Parts: sequence; C-alpha cells; structure tokens
Amino acid sequence: MTTLPSPLSPPERLLLGPGPSPVPPTVLSALARPTIGHLDPAYLEIMDGLKAMLRAVMRTESPMTFAVSGTGMAGMECCIVNLVEPGDAVLACVNGVFGERMAEIARRAGAEVRRIERPWGEVFTAEEVAAALKEAPAKVVGLVMAETSTGAAQPIEDIAQAVHEAGALLLVDAVTALGGMDVQVDGWGIDALYAGTQKCLSCPPGLAPVTFGPRAMEAIRRRCHPVQSWYLDVSLLEGYWQGEGGRAYHHTAPVNMTYALYEALRLVLEEGLEARFARHLRHHRALARGLEALGLSFVPEADVRLPMLNAVFVPGGTDEAALRRSLLDEGIEVGGGLGPFAGRILRIGLMGHGARKENVLRLVEALGRHLGGDGTGAVLEYYEGEEDA
Amino acid sequence: MTTLPSPLSPPERLLLGPGPSPVPPTVLSALARPTIGHLDPAYLEIMDGLKAMLRAVMRTESPMTFAVSGTGMAGMECCIVNLVEPGDAVLACVNGVFGERMAEIARRAGAEVRRIERPWGEVFTAEEVAAALKEAPAKVVGLVMAETSTGAAQPIEDIAQAVHEAGALLLVDAVTALGGMDVQVDGWGIDALYAGTQKCLSCPPGLAPVTFGPRAMEAIRRRCHPVQSWYLDVSLLEGYWQGEGGRAYHHTAPVNMTYALYEALRLVLEEGLEARFARHLRHHRALARGLEALGLSFVPEADVRLPMLNAVFVPGGTDEAALRRSLLDEGIEVGGGLGPFAGRILRIGLMGHGARKENVLRLVEALGRHLGGDGTGAVLEYYEGEEDA
Repeated sequence: MTTLPSPLSPPERLLLGPGPSPVPPTVLSALARPTIGHLDPAYLEIMDGLKAMLRAVMRTESPMTFAVSGTGMAGMECCIVNLVEPGDAVLACVNGVFGERMAEIARRAGAEVRRIERPWGEVFTAEEVAAALKEAPAKVVGLVMAETSTGAAQPIEDIAQAVHEAGALLLVDAVTALGGMDVQVDGWGIDALYAGTQKCLSCPPGLAPVTFGPRAMEAIRRRCHPVQSWYLDVSLLEGYWQGEGGRAYHHTAPVNMTYALYEALRLVLEEGLEARFARHLRHHRALARGLEALGLSFVPEADVRLPMLNAVFVPGGTDEAALRRSLLDEGIEVGGGLGPFAGRILRIGLMGHGARKENVLRLVEALGRHLGGDGTGAVLEYYEGEEDA
Repeated sequence: MTTLPSPLSPPERLLLGPGPSPVPPTVLSALARPTIGHLDPAYLEIMDGLKAMLRAVMRTESPMTFAVSGTGMAGMECCIVNLVEPGDAVLACVNGVFGERMAEIARRAGAEVRRIERPWGEVFTAEEVAAALKEAPAKVVGLVMAETSTGAAQPIEDIAQAVHEAGALLLVDAVTALGGMDVQVDGWGIDALYAGTQKCLSCPPGLAPVTFGPRAMEAIRRRCHPVQSWYLDVSLLEGYWQGEGGRAYHHTAPVNMTYALYEALRLVLEEGLEARFARHLRHHRALARGLEALGLSFVPEADVRLPMLNAVFVPGGTDEAALRRSLLDEGIEVGGGLGPFAGRILRIGLMGHGARKENVLRLVEALGRHLGGDGTGAVLEYYEGEEDA
C-alpha cells in the first residue's frame, strides 16, 4: 500500500435512528480500559457481575443469561440454532424484517418453518398464535417484541401462555426492547430471548445478551444432533460462562466490549428500570406531539407504538432520502424504511441515553425547518403540561 | 438486584500469554471515539480504509477481505461454513487444538472430514498432504499456520502448491500469525484465511479479519445449499462490505471495534511489515536465550518455532499453575498448556506491541526468581551482540 489511510476521525453525530444509540461518556471510557486476559480471574469476576446485571435487566433467575460474542443478529442465530434441530417444526410470527429473519435462520438450521403473518405495523393476538399451533404443533414459536422495522410493540404475556399450553417454547427478539420497556422473562414465561447492546442499553454494538430458561435448556440437553454452529453452541459456552471449578476456554471473549456492557448495565440499574421505562415513554410522547404537529402520522396504531422507535410516514411528495441526508449534514442521524416501507417512512429512535428532552427538541426543530412547519410548540407544551401535573 | 456490582476496575496486566496482547494507547483511544451509525457514509469510508489495510497486511488483492463481526473462532467458522456444503470432503491437518477445531466445525457443517495428524509441536510436509489427497481427494484442506497450542510454525507455500495440484482449496488459520510473521495470501496461493485481532495486530479481541480469494469465491457462488449460518454468510456480507451503489443492511457492525482495528492496522503499516516481523524475531531470539539459560526447553524443534508464541516445558516437579498464579500476582500474564500439554508447558507470547526488550527482561527476571536461576544475563548478551552486529 503506497499511502496509509488518514487517521481515524469519526464525526460527532446525534444518533436518533434505529440504533446504534448515543453512548454515555463513562461507557466509552470503560471501553478504553486496558485489555486483560479472557481467563484472568479479574475478568471472570467482571463476567459474573455482567451476568448478574443482565439477569436483573431481563428479570430472570436463569443461570444461562450471558452475552454472545457477536452483534444482535448473532444472538438471534445463537437462540435458533440451539433450540432447533433438523426437522423440528418452528412457527414464525412475521410482521416485519426481524420476524422474517427468524424464519430464514430457522430454515437454514433445518427447521420446518411455518409462518403466520400480519401486515407490517400490526401485531399478533394470542388467539391467532393459539389457532396456528392447534392447526399444526411446533417446537418453537418465534416472536419479535419490538419490531424495529415498523415501530410496533408486540404484547408477550398472553401469547407466552398460549404457546406453553400448546407445549411449545417461546423465543422472543428483544433487541430493541431491552432497557427501554418492561421485559419480564420469568414473569411472562419467555423460554429464550436475545437482545442487542446498541439500542436501549446505550452501549456500542458488539455483544448480544441472551437468556435460556429451564425449558429451553432441557430441550438443548435432549438434542439428538450437535448444534450446527460451534461458535454459538450453548453447551460449550456454558463451560466458559458457568463452569464450576474452573472455566473452560472456548473462544477469546471481546474483553473491552464486555467492559462497556458492564458499565452500560450499571447505568441502567442505577437509573432503575421503572424510571428508565418511564423516561422512554415520556420523551416518546413529547416527540409524538411534535411529529403530529408537523403532520407526520405513525405507522402503528396508538395502542401498539414502541416508545423507543417511532416509525412515521413522510408527507407525500417528500424526498425521504434527501431529508435524511440534510439531517445528517447537520449531525443528526435518523433511519429510513426497510422493505415495503423504503422511501416512505422515517424511523426515529429515542433509545437509552438518547431519550432526552434536548434531543426531542433539536430533532423536531430540524424536521420543522426541512418540512416547513413548527412542532416545537407542541413538544414544549407537552413537557410543561407534564411538569404541572 | 439489591446491590449493584462495584464499578469496573480491571487491573493493569502485562499480557505475555497466547493473547490478548498489549494494546497500544492510541488503539484504546480509537476504541473510545464516539459511536456513529453503521450505515453512515463516514463509517462506510472507515470500512473501506480498513479493507485496504487488511489487504496490505495479508498481501492480497482480493476484494473479499474484511472483518467478521465476532472473535477469531467466528472467522474460522465463517470460512468453513461458506466453503463447505453437506457431503463435501475436507482434509483437516491436525497437530494441535486449532486443527482439531477446524475438523470439528467442518463436521458440524456436514462435511466428510478426513484427518491427518502429526504429534503436537510438529508440522506437516507438502508430501504428506499430497499423499493424503492422492489417497482421497478433498474440496478443502485446512491448515494452521501458527498453532497457538504448541508454538509450531507451519510452512505454507509448498503445501499450497500440493493442494492446488490436487484441485482442492487451501484454508489457512492465521489467527496468531498475522502481523507477526510473513503471510502472503496471493503469493503463496492461499484461498481463504482467517485471523484474530488480539494477537500480533495488538487490537482488543472482537473482530476476525478474513479473506476469500477468487477460487474460494467461485466455490461459494457455485454452492447448491444455502450457507447454514445467516450471520456468517459471505454472499450476504458482500452486500454490506462491498455493495456497489449502496451497501445493504445485514447486521449492525461493531462500530467501535472497527475503529480500534483501523488504528491497529495503521500502526502495523506505519511500522512496516518487514520491520515488524524482524522485531518479533529479534525479541523471540532474546527470550529464547533467557529461557534456555533457565533450563526451559522449547516444545517445537528450532527450525519450526513461532516467533510470537514460545511454548516451553516447565522443569519437572514445578507446579505450573502455581507459577502462573505467582506471575499474575505481580501483574504478568503467561499462558498454560492445553490438552496433552496441560500442566506441562508455559505459552509465552511476544505479540505485536508486546514484543519489546523491557517485556522480555521483566519476564525472564521474574521467571528466574520463581524457578531459581538467572536468564537476564543471556538476554542482555543477545541484545548487546545484536547491537554490535
């Protein structure tokens, strides 16, 4: 190579897209602490602290709660390839990009995949899932709690019951949900769940928190075929994350990413889960006022809107890509639509550290400027009304 | 959770084990730069710079040279699951832990795996590989260049020729080799190769550099079955790393890890490959003098010793685990043996930023203190002799 690329100088961005979200300074500092060995007793202690905090955030007692050494999609793949053996029946609930991916990954794991579908932006009822399982039983039902492609919030509890009544296991995608809204793994009876770090946990991407409950672990122990992925094999990972009397080397964990997630989880628990969920909801409501004042309408109905991911249609005639480019030029990232929504919607994230009054105001002001309109009055009115209440 | 785990405070360690290796301060600073979006034009530019630098370090022109979003073992799995389809014949050359793992991962990918073996610490000849392929042809031959479990250096070039003459593809594990010794992907005819970041590139663990040459990409394009892993499917990753006219979203890349690897590769190329390899060799030789003065003998014969990973037998009667604990108590990490070498050897890494005179002296002094002996004289003598030369 004749000339070296220029030194790294990433720009400052306000991350209000579908993730990654803004990372608090102490999480970035944690990331830059000196690397230590992945079998160092001090590192094993950090792993133990991390696991305890993940259990608290996921509201589970399950010992197999840890972080997969990859990003969110590695978490999805880890859950599916461990739960599914060739020929197993899987019911995938598809109402957006991520349900579609669950189906695709299960298919690649050799499952007989059956899909039920809802239009993008809508969610499933327990009755629909129960009816589908009555028609054809399944070993695993896959469901996305916070569909990042549509902004729809999927209620879980009733479906979990229907799934268990049909003798199946419930796998939940909580990539965007975790840390921003209530996720009760044990309380609702979720058997396996994966998440991402770069959404409402406000940690850089690079790890995928996962949990496997007792029913899921039993299914894994009863497998007849080895898990197709060695890297993601939970029985092997158990020896590293859980090993009694010494941890077995499996792979070299991403040590500094573990530091960052440790600090990010500390911040989540320091704030308190209820306070954090309330904060997400509050700024979502303020943003919604501003967006509606600008004439932008939400993709999902009011009762199933995610607090942390706001999917809104752009006004007819607006060049959505140009709008996003203009916002990026002034340092604000928002997301565009995927699949059938490409070019038609904006996806605005208020995730973790990003869910703050000043961010809502900055974005609504900028959108008003580009679209011609003013939404900041409505936003301020919401915050004032709330303070009075 | 009633009480939060204590704030993160990893200890300072001198990392002289089999990896991770010491990380230079500018790489840690790069890691802590503000996170930006994984589809931000500024990030795509960083990815392009990263790819160009990886091609330079791997000495290849192949456009499919990028970093897998996982640690080294994810790189191994990525190469194998993309090259291998169910029923394909794979020849695995096994002389340590990592050859064994290649065989295991290929088996899980549905390959018919045949193994040839050499005792741990020895390496393969081209004749052995040619004979094995004559007996039974294979689609892929897997070979470990730097066997981290034994410290043995596998010559590649002649074997690559034998593999190609038999019409097979050569897959090389360069996890520990890359950045510390010459790896000529195009010059030697390596078809696919994976590496780690946390060895001689002196970046924290979390990414796996890989390259697929034209023959490998052709085999991938001719596949009849989908790659079993969606997360590691090179055809999908190509759309993100390579996409002409817009990159397709596949997964959220580990943005900050990419920053770190970018800076680490800059440092490698700034030093210059030849100078870097010479530095590794120089400090390896100095260390070897010291270890031999202490009565420690190497696992591999002199002509096949790795410069960056020194595997030596501990003297009979020494409690190897206690020795490593004592060293760790004074802040020095070295590795123990795996498999048949457990309790019998030390694995001492002088990798990347760690390959320095002061580290060699500090370790040899400490070892002398614990084992009863003095090796520092021999080390100093080597450095002085070299300076005179």
